[in-house]
Amino acid sequence: MVEHNFHQQSHSFVKLVIFLCLLFLSANISVEARIRHYEWEVKYEYKSPDCFKKLSISINGKTPGPTIVAQQGDTIVVEVKNSLLTENLAIHWHGIRQIGTPWADGTEGVTQCPIVPGDTFVYKFVVDRAGTYLYHAHYGMQRQAGLQGMIRVSLPDGVLEPFSYDHDKSILLTDWYHKSTYEQATGLASLDFSWVGEPQSILIHGRGRFNCSIPSIDPTLCNATNPQCTPYSMTVVSGKTYRLRIGSLTALSALSFEIEGHNMTVVEADGHYVEPFVVQNLFIYSGETYSVLIKADQDPTRNYWASTKVVSRNSTTPNGLGIFNYYPNHPRRYPPTVPPSGPRWDDVAPRMAQSVAIKSHKDFIHAPPLTSDRVIVMLNTQNMVNGYVRWSVNNVSFNMPHTPYLIALKYNLLHAFDQTPPPDNYDHKNYDIFNIAPNVNATTSNSIYRLKFNTTVDIILQNANTKNPNNSETHPWHLHGHDFWVMGYGNGKFNQSIDPKNYNFVNPIMKNTIPVHPYGWTALRFRADNPGVWAFHCHIESHFFMGMGVVFEEGIEKVGKLPTSIMGCGESKRFHRP
Amino acid sequence: MVEHNFHQQSHSFVKLVIFLCLLFLSANISVEARIRHYEWEVKYEYKSPDCFKKLSISINGKTPGPTIVAQQGDTIVVEVKNSLLTENLAIHWHGIRQIGTPWADGTEGVTQCPIVPGDTFVYKFVVDRAGTYLYHAHYGMQRQAGLQGMIRVSLPDGVLEPFSYDHDKSILLTDWYHKSTYEQATGLASLDFSWVGEPQSILIHGRGRFNCSIPSIDPTLCNATNPQCTPYSMTVVSGKTYRLRIGSLTALSALSFEIEGHNMTVVEADGHYVEPFVVQNLFIYSGETYSVLIKADQDPTRNYWASTKVVSRNSTTPNGLGIFNYYPNHPRRYPPTVPPSGPRWDDVAPRMAQSVAIKSHKDFIHAPPLTSDRVIVMLNTQNMVNGYVRWSVNNVSFNMPHTPYLIALKYNLLHAFDQTPPPDNYDHKNYDIFNIAPNVNATTSNSIYRLKFNTTVDIILQNANTKNPNNSETHPWHLHGHDFWVMGYGNGKFNQSIDPKNYNFVNPIMKNTIPVHPYGWTALRFRADNPGVWAFHCHIESHFFMGMGVVFEEGIEKVGKLPTSIMGCGESKRFHRP
Repeated sequence: MVEHNFHQQSHSFVKLVIFLCLLFLSANISVEARIRHYEWEVKYEYKSPDCFKKLSISINGKTPGPTIVAQQGDTIVVEVKNSLLTENLAIHWHGIRQIGTPWADGTEGVTQCPIVPGDTFVYKFVVDRAGTYLYHAHYGMQRQAGLQGMIRVSLPDGVLEPFSYDHDKSILLTDWYHKSTYEQATGLASLDFSWVGEPQSILIHGRGRFNCSIPSIDPTLCNATNPQCTPYSMTVVSGKTYRLRIGSLTALSALSFEIEGHNMTVVEADGHYVEPFVVQNLFIYSGETYSVLIKADQDPTRNYWASTKVVSRNSTTPNGLGIFNYYPNHPRRYPPTVPPSGPRWDDVAPRMAQSVAIKSHKDFIHAPPLTSDRVIVMLNTQNMVNGYVRWSVNNVSFNMPHTPYLIALKYNLLHAFDQTPPPDNYDHKNYDIFNIAPNVNATTSNSIYRLKFNTTVDIILQNANTKNPNNSETHPWHLHGHDFWVMGYGNGKFNQSIDPKNYNFVNPIMKNTIPVHPYGWTALRFRADNPGVWAFHCHIESHFFMGMGVVFEEGIEKVGKLPTSIMGCGESKRFHRP
Repeated sequence: MVEHNFHQQSHSFVKLVIFLCLLFLSANISVEARIRHYEWEVKYEYKSPDCFKKLSISINGKTPGPTIVAQQGDTIVVEVKNSLLTENLAIHWHGIRQIGTPWADGTEGVTQCPIVPGDTFVYKFVVDRAGTYLYHAHYGMQRQAGLQGMIRVSLPDGVLEPFSYDHDKSILLTDWYHKSTYEQATGLASLDFSWVGEPQSILIHGRGRFNCSIPSIDPTLCNATNPQCTPYSMTVVSGKTYRLRIGSLTALSALSFEIEGHNMTVVEADGHYVEPFVVQNLFIYSGETYSVLIKADQDPTRNYWASTKVVSRNSTTPNGLGIFNYYPNHPRRYPPTVPPSGPRWDDVAPRMAQSVAIKSHKDFIHAPPLTSDRVIVMLNTQNMVNGYVRWSVNNVSFNMPHTPYLIALKYNLLHAFDQTPPPDNYDHKNYDIFNIAPNVNATTSNSIYRLKFNTTVDIILQNANTKNPNNSETHPWHLHGHDFWVMGYGNGKFNQSIDPKNYNFVNPIMKNTIPVHPYGWTALRFRADNPGVWAFHCHIESHFFMGMGVVFEEGIEKVGKLPTSIMGCGESKRFHRP
């Protein structure tokens, strides 16, 4: 009996142990699955992405870097080791709102000091919403040296998307210069101004094709047979449907992307579901992401061109070409057709039409607040400041302070930057947006917009003529730390008493990057509900470098203790213990 | 009487006031004269020093930077603003011993964290001895982007030099690459090793002449008529004697310098007076300075060539040419003669002869200690480490820690670098210095030599064959924080029981930079009497970058409170107050 009892107890005990082990294991598995740990070494390497050999920045040997694949709610930990020898770095996680971790936004001068060579910086943040996002350098013009990649966040297990597909693929579109970022930046920042010019190539997921037979090209540097510049090829099976996630991190170029002979159904934009609509070509601006569905429904005995064309600029850059490969055709077999020529570069109407067409999916509408607490109108202009060519917002050209704002504000170091707030408007009565300003001079400042916490803010991006006659450019603006509602677009000058009446309160899409079209305006609304300091800027690398950006502060008093890892420059060098 | 008294008192009072005013004024003048204050902005600019346009680092717009002119005992204050956008910097004051200010030595990784873009770093130090010195970047391979210049320290008023001259002139010799330091460093630090090659030009005080008519050269980048590449011209008056201070900060090249048809009397080396001797051509190695006296005693109706030739390497680099201009001939009038061809590049004997000829001036002999407390023999070898090409000392290839040694040692952060001391010798019995080592592999370490304070240390630099057959290079070694006595030179393998008996105890010159000749040895002696942490390394930019250096610590406990301005990287980022 005792023995029996003991046996029973023993049996129960074994069951308990097994149960506890399973519990522990499952808990452990679950925890392991929710922390995605990456170790990245960032360094310069010679690469030939378009057959032309030049220094590029790589992550673990790859340019563009590895795609981060995660699930909604996961914590991403990226240990970034700077092996750039003498150059610092910072990496921004584009589209990730960094709720509760504003110090991990990776924006040099705004949220952190740069990571110096030899140091390892740990970015740790939660990806709290499924969707397609990006990452890239946010320091000087470092992004266009190749330090960039994609983030793909899937839904929680058992949650379904409002569309179906057989396979999930991703491509990153970039443009590529043969000059170093040092050469480009020096030209831009000189009194003897020299413009970076049009990029040499458009890359589809890091692959392009420069014409090595141009006589002035050093043949030892350009090799058309280099496997690194084999065109990007996406293999499909006839009859299947593909979700293609497309991100753009061009330095300069607005792009049109198409797959010859195939329709694309737009279903996601910047991590938000879109009420589906069909396009033959997708316009995509730097900093944007889209998902499109493509059905492999054409003649499967051949391949088709994937083509990217520069729009909005009369660019000399050849179209970027890839191959849409029907299995079992050879993935590098060229299609029998002439590549599609794409839309006219200077036709704004279809681009505006696509912008307007992007609405929130009807089952996923986040209703915007009906009113806003503050309206900031931002006139986008090209200017001169002390003889330098600059870009400005309301005639103020942005420059970075020496102490990152997040540190300066948290420690109340108000002398670290200009405390005069930048203007909320421009002289809209008298300013002629269709002509060159009579006085193109602007001022420069590192002052910021301080937003009242938990208020609703409207931003009107107002485009204008540049310093050249009959020229107005497209500027893709990106907001850190938030998504915004896209309330409306228009041509010409925004009218504050009329245009808000036409805002879309029904189904506005939420995005983090949005174009303002030539001579047009774009209206955004967002909630200032994420404690931190956030950049909002034109995503064209040279434009932000030349001052086309602003910074918002909200709820700084709610920001937790800053990690010491973001310190080390400006005033924070003097936070010294011993 | 009272009134008279008052007058007298008043008179005395006035006299006292005048006296005090004069005293104050003179004190003030004296103080003003003894602090030399510089504000430098360091940035990238396009320059064409040899007619070929490329990015160069400038100081206040100049490459090389301005000459610092001071008097013995002066305090130099240089406020360096880093405007390099994404690249850090550090500036070393080469030949200045930094007694009491080891944190101002400007050696990134050893005495300070790098200066990040946007920050201003203040170097403050005393120039405690008259002579000719240098300054240059000491970070990665930044020096050869052009961040360098000269320091000229004159004697106190009333003190005379042991030689006389009519005019005092300075020139800096450099070599110049058209590839960026990023391209060079990436090639050196890759498994797919690519050597920097021979420089494109030799510059005399920042001016050279590349052949723009080479077909492969982009004509938009090379312009032979650019005034920036007008040859250096030194104007002299017939019959006068010139003191010419010559410094070399070549990246790679050992040079021979001559003035066609003119003798040069060597009178100073690295800030020490030399027992005068006459040369037709002066051999000068990177990091060295010399003063020579030149009498303008030739036919004054014409100009003469100043010529610099690469020696010790079979270089493709053309000789650097300048003009020794007899007034009133036009300073840019070419001499009627073919430029001198200079000595044979591979003739070591005259170079060894010059090294041996340099002795202390008989009236300025600093007697060396008769014995030493420690002898460190340093075998110089070219090696492989984990597949990378490296240079080593006693088979250890140096690499920098993330926390500068000065900070790590002062705060006892002993985990910040390898605590195993590097070897004091090599297997000199079995190592064949005349052949390629059977095993070329070495190890890498950031360990350092810790010297007992106030002891006397001998260093024997032992040269050897490289990884290539029948090849041994010249390495100019530079010691920070000290001058050393040059005890002797020899060919072949140093014999510790015989060679020290031939050391020069009578009149050894003191220097801070010294060559070790191919297959030879050089013996140095110094007093470890300067509290701090000091680099000792080959002054060839690529060699130190590839590990050819060591670090000495002495008297760290005597080092005063470190300025917070040197902090901000590695462990010192975590010295955080709030």
